[in-house]
Amino acid sequence: MSFTNPLLDAWSRGDDTLGVWCQLPSSTAMEMIAGVGFDYACLDMQHGLIDYPDAVPMLQAARAGGVTPIARVPANDAGTIGKILDAGAMGVVVPLVNTPEQAARAVAACRYPPVGQRSFGPIRAGMLIGSRDPQELQKVACIVMVETQEGLDNVEEIAAVDGLDAIYVGPSDLAIGLGMAPGYEREEPAHVEAIERIRQACAAAGIAAGIQTDRGDMARRRLDQGFAMVTVGHEAGFMKRMAQQELDTARGG
Amino acid sequence: MSFTNPLLDAWSRGDDTLGVWCQLPSSTAMEMIAGVGFDYACLDMQHGLIDYPDAVPMLQAARAGGVTPIARVPANDAGTIGKILDAGAMGVVVPLVNTPEQAARAVAACRYPPVGQRSFGPIRAGMLIGSRDPQELQKVACIVMVETQEGLDNVEEIAAVDGLDAIYVGPSDLAIGLGMAPGYEREEPAHVEAIERIRQACAAAGIAAGIQTDRGDMARRRLDQGFAMVTVGHEAGFMKRMAQQELDTARGG
Amino acid sequence: MSFTNPLLDAWSRGDDTLGVWCQLPSSTAMEMIAGVGFDYACLDMQHGLIDYPDAVPMLQAARAGGVTPIARVPANDAGTIGKILDAGAMGVVVPLVNTPEQAARAVAACRYPPVGQRSFGPIRAGMLIGSRDPQELQKVACIVMVETQEGLDNVEEIAAVDGLDAIYVGPSDLAIGLGMAPGYEREEPAHVEAIERIRQACAAAGIAAGIQTDRGDMARRRLDQGFAMVTVGHEAGFMKRMAQQELDTARGG
Amino acid sequence: MSFTNPLLDAWSRGDDTLGVWCQLPSSTAMEMIAGVGFDYACLDMQHGLIDYPDAVPMLQAARAGGVTPIARVPANDAGTIGKILDAGAMGVVVPLVNTPEQAARAVAACRYPPVGQRSFGPIRAGMLIGSRDPQELQKVACIVMVETQEGLDNVEEIAAVDGLDAIYVGPSDLAIGLGMAPGYEREEPAHVEAIERIRQACAAAGIAAGIQTDRGDMARRRLDQGFAMVTVGHEAGFMKRMAQQELDTARGG
Amino acid sequence: MSFTNPLLDAWSRGDDTLGVWCQLPSSTAMEMIAGVGFDYACLDMQHGLIDYPDAVPMLQAARAGGVTPIARVPANDAGTIGKILDAGAMGVVVPLVNTPEQAARAVAACRYPPVGQRSFGPIRAGMLIGSRDPQELQKVACIVMVETQEGLDNVEEIAAVDGLDAIYVGPSDLAIGLGMAPGYEREEPAHVEAIERIRQACAAAGIAAGIQTDRGDMARRRLDQGFAMVTVGHEAGFMKRMAQQELDTARGG
Amino acid sequence: MSFTNPLLDAWSRGDDTLGVWCQLPSSTAMEMIAGVGFDYACLDMQHGLIDYPDAVPMLQAARAGGVTPIARVPANDAGTIGKILDAGAMGVVVPLVNTPEQAARAVAACRYPPVGQRSFGPIRAGMLIGSRDPQELQKVACIVMVETQEGLDNVEEIAAVDGLDAIYVGPSDLAIGLGMAPGYEREEPAHVEAIERIRQACAAAGIAAGIQTDRGDMARRRLDQGFAMVTVGHEAGFMKRMAQQELDTARGG
Repeated sequence: MSFTNPLLDAWSRGDDTLGVWCQLPSSTAMEMIAGVGFDYACLDMQHGLIDYPDAVPMLQAARAGGVTPIARVPANDAGTIGKILDAGAMGVVVPLVNTPEQAARAVAACRYPPVGQRSFGPIRAGMLIGSRDPQELQKVACIVMVETQEGLDNVEEIAAVDGLDAIYVGPSDLAIGLGMAPGYEREEPAHVEAIERIRQACAAAGIAAGIQTDRGDMARRRLDQGFAMVTVGHEAGFMKRMAQQELDTARGG
Repeated sequence: MSFTNPLLDAWSRGDDTLGVWCQLPSSTAMEMIAGVGFDYACLDMQHGLIDYPDAVPMLQAARAGGVTPIARVPANDAGTIGKILDAGAMGVVVPLVNTPEQAARAVAACRYPPVGQRSFGPIRAGMLIGSRDPQELQKVACIVMVETQEGLDNVEEIAAVDGLDAIYVGPSDLAIGLGMAPGYEREEPAHVEAIERIRQACAAAGIAAGIQTDRGDMARRRLDQGFAMVTVGHEAGFMKRMAQQELDTARGG
Repeated sequence: MSFTNPLLDAWSRGDDTLGVWCQLPSSTAMEMIAGVGFDYACLDMQHGLIDYPDAVPMLQAARAGGVTPIARVPANDAGTIGKILDAGAMGVVVPLVNTPEQAARAVAACRYPPVGQRSFGPIRAGMLIGSRDPQELQKVACIVMVETQEGLDNVEEIAAVDGLDAIYVGPSDLAIGLGMAPGYEREEPAHVEAIERIRQACAAAGIAAGIQTDRGDMARRRLDQGFAMVTVGHEAGFMKRMAQQELDTARGG
Repeated sequence: MSFTNPLLDAWSRGDDTLGVWCQLPSSTAMEMIAGVGFDYACLDMQHGLIDYPDAVPMLQAARAGGVTPIARVPANDAGTIGKILDAGAMGVVVPLVNTPEQAARAVAACRYPPVGQRSFGPIRAGMLIGSRDPQELQKVACIVMVETQEGLDNVEEIAAVDGLDAIYVGPSDLAIGLGMAPGYEREEPAHVEAIERIRQACAAAGIAAGIQTDRGDMARRRLDQGFAMVTVGHEAGFMKRMAQQELDTARGG
Repeated sequence: MSFTNPLLDAWSRGDDTLGVWCQLPSSTAMEMIAGVGFDYACLDMQHGLIDYPDAVPMLQAARAGGVTPIARVPANDAGTIGKILDAGAMGVVVPLVNTPEQAARAVAACRYPPVGQRSFGPIRAGMLIGSRDPQELQKVACIVMVETQEGLDNVEEIAAVDGLDAIYVGPSDLAIGLGMAPGYEREEPAHVEAIERIRQACAAAGIAAGIQTDRGDMARRRLDQGFAMVTVGHEAGFMKRMAQQELDTARGG
Repeated sequence: MSFTNPLLDAWSRGDDTLGVWCQLPSSTAMEMIAGVGFDYACLDMQHGLIDYPDAVPMLQAARAGGVTPIARVPANDAGTIGKILDAGAMGVVVPLVNTPEQAARAVAACRYPPVGQRSFGPIRAGMLIGSRDPQELQKVACIVMVETQEGLDNVEEIAAVDGLDAIYVGPSDLAIGLGMAPGYEREEPAHVEAIERIRQACAAAGIAAGIQTDRGDMARRRLDQGFAMVTVGHEAGFMKRMAQQELDTARGG
């Protein structure tokens, strides 16, 4: 019986997936958030406060809590990508991919020869996936971020890279790249069009389109727009926002 | 210039204080929550997932974020109380205090001879308080919990113990002790009256009355009832509740 | 639907349970060992190198790996017992219980009023057990160790303590207490008889009898003798023994 | 070949020992300080910022760096004492011992039956000592602190407790107990005489006398006075003092 | 109101800054050393024993203790630089910069488009700086190290790179690069002249010149020579040196 | 007196060395395994669950336990290699080296100018090696892995790279690279011949040949074949295998 990656499976069926971004280096926060019911939880090792030693117990806690964990790596680096996949991440989000060559490099870091160049040693992944067969082990989601003007210019070629599973939009970086202030849902037409162009490039290539939001209603709009991988927010933001709201209620009467 | 403990100072002025309960062993969660504006943050070392090695960086993060940290210890034990005070907690919450003798023991663990029996070695506390004078160092809040039938029966004597700063109500344990299901605001008269009796005992003794809640509106009601130390909720609960709410919004559309 | 504790359930059905003792403070070792198929994994917080901050991710890893975790606490202390149960241990092993009063104290630390005196705050346990009902939450195994001459003298009264789930034999401490060298299967009749007396006391009281071994064949013998909770060895011992064996093979040819 | 505890061995030969107090929870600081050449390094688990999970790698680092590690525990508690001895501390310093009964309790926590009541499970100690023979394993230094008026009144009886290896003076607590400000070398005759009385009680009982200082010249004076176990200072204090001195030099020209 | 980076501010005013190098992975050591009064504390993630998971609580402790933290990264890598800046470092020291292109790469890692290529996600930095405006967030010190013959040959072009804030001299690496033994203040004219050449290149470019020392008097000489960013030593060295000195005093009498 | 690296020394004498691969991030597991008697212990920072903050206490534990530690780094990156050598690894294993240029880059990361480009700052290494002389400090083993078709094609040129100490075979990656399933001892002639070709290239170049196995008997065969650096297995595998074996014995009777 072969392994099924829940994310890849959902996308191949055309199903939506809703996720959470994790920035606290805490297995306990991860286990709690895993119980909420998200389809995926992404350990943010780029901008979050999480590094590899924090990630291992978080991946264990994600398994305990029953959510599919993926990880955003700080850079498009084969050693880093292979290491977090061996530890059991079911996919990687690779930032700042601007060209099809860079996208192909990300894919190669996720797959074994002859397809890619990943090194073999699936210490935790083998345990989770229940196999040491490279064909099974490489069923991990390779997701690249398009978030610069250069990436946008190349998005159709990027989307067409063989073996890529999704493109994920970082709206704030994209905004900065387009000369705007950072923001999730900028109203400038250039921002709106850029996001829609990325989504269409994914649709044309038959891969999933993903995007970051920080609220449920915004996430809903992105689902409706046709994004299949939508992040609802990050756990630290949820914590702070609710704390502020309840404290204000207590203070304000 | 002498040290002023913000909590003791507020209570002596008759001011209310609103706090947060911390259960995640994470200095990052603490620093973030500290920025929200609570008057105190209590490291829950009894029921939370926090132990001493987690507490030290959390106390540093509380200082960084600008909130007054206190700690709930797992038991009325002088070694444990002294150790967390030396590490810089500005007060302790001591659970399951049922008699005036037990309350006096908690007080003695917070003060140096001849008043109490605390051992001298204020490694971080001396740095924070800016003094190694025992008189200054012992300006920490000694808060005991009344949460059993026996404690309730003795509450007036407990409140009268010399050197005690506050009594804190654990409504769920109190409910269980009274034969009810756990809950913050039980409607049974026995629960309502027990809480009011504790508050009045504090008022009569001239010490602060404290209580746990898990929402802003409930906290508001407790302030209005005359509690001076009201916890609005815990950070893990805030995180989960908002995550659920936003996910439901995203799902439900 | 009510919660079922796998250990209590097995024992009530008369089924045997085989376990592993964990002494390495490592969530990764725990997750790996959990996959081997033991019925329980006991975090040894008395003689192992594990303390509370290590235990939390280990309990998460046990959940991830699918084994029922219990914990041996360093002492018969209500604060310590409650804290590890709140963190999700499904039972506690309490050392050095010599009298029925001490056994009753251990039981009281595991159950809520009116049965016991456990304080309410099931932070992780509530998540695992899927309930905040005290009746459900207190379905944890209370296991006490009889390992001294005094304990042996009182073993029938200890076994009869209401709410006790099992007595666990520490053969080495028992041997030292009887004036022998430490060992798992001493041949002296006094040791053999002491162990059998404990087993019979459990049988008479209708509770499980447990015992430590450090090899599979010894564990088999204890099962055959009528012990229902048999520990096969500890993970650090497994690691060292196999490492030595393979190195000797490599060296010796 | 039997194990020799370097501290017990030095004291039995009448040799002086000079040590360092460790308060930073850092195996790296420990390893570095171990290389300086002290006879012992004491992990201060009472007033230092060190708890059990920090202590284990510190004990490993002490072994790596070649210094004899001991530990000051937060309280006279058998579970805590046994656990740190099992982890490889070569002795314990037990605070606030005021009576011969309390001293006997500390001794009993260090020795196996029939002498004491220590539980058997020398996980790291067995590896270090190279034996699982209780006779060898219990060659650990049992050091109690006399630091209150009551302790002083009983010091001769305390010193005479069978199995005790040393009495250690905490000059600051002793000063507070005598109604003075804390300090290492108070000039008040009562303080001077109290310290000398403790030293003489040790001499009369044939055990080592120990004392805390925070400078090399003060340590020298205590050696000259007849103390055999003299702590020169703590590593955090060394770090801060030299940092201040060098910064002042850089600033002041 | 806009954010002011204390280091950049001092240098723009022509003020000297004195700092400490941190090599112990300990938030407690950092908080203590922060209290001494240095202008900056640099987390040495290249040669120190500090990695990202250690750095986060150290940055929190630096904030708590009131010192401006910067970090030396192990390599000129955009992912690493961005991650530590997001975590709240107020500047980075980038080793082994040998060409103006490499210096420009370091600058680009510190600034957002269109100036640089930093990715947006200021998780802790936004909290500290009190803004999510890229203009405010990029007020971090970009400091590159010139420490090879090639770097020295290019130092004037490096100093002229737009957006660079300082050049920092590693005297030991420079000595090795020039064929000498490592050392802070080599007497060979080639070493003396190289350091002076770097300083003059900085002066000509209007940026700060920085240098490593390990004593207060040496730091004083470097200030007098015209260096504006002078490190007085590292905390581990302070600890060991004072420990040795006090032990020698105690031993030698 | 100059420093002698035990591994380099053994290889120069023509002696065999047997080692263990460490994948658990645990200083305790390392110290225990170190006591078994292996010639080297390799911290697997590529496929193991170990990162730098875990590695530091593991290197301390290796020193404590008396085994020569080396580290496999995740990539051929100078910053990573230098950092783990500064922390006291006595050699590095560099994966995926396919060309003599890549091998020369690995060598350069291990040696100081003028031979290589390593940056100076031997924080722990200087303490272990007892010297700050670059000539002494660079006596670390530079070991590269040949594990792809490209590497195999270039193996003679790689082996001839000046300053290289050994080539290490990763049999599973090599198998995948040759189009086979992963495995330690594949029977396909192409695999057998590839391994023998690598061994002969090492012999011709006068450097050590190393290889991974996972059992003692396989290690014995590799020694007999002429490999001088043979890994017997990894500690996590030892633990799991023995646990399974003993549990099966207990179950199966």
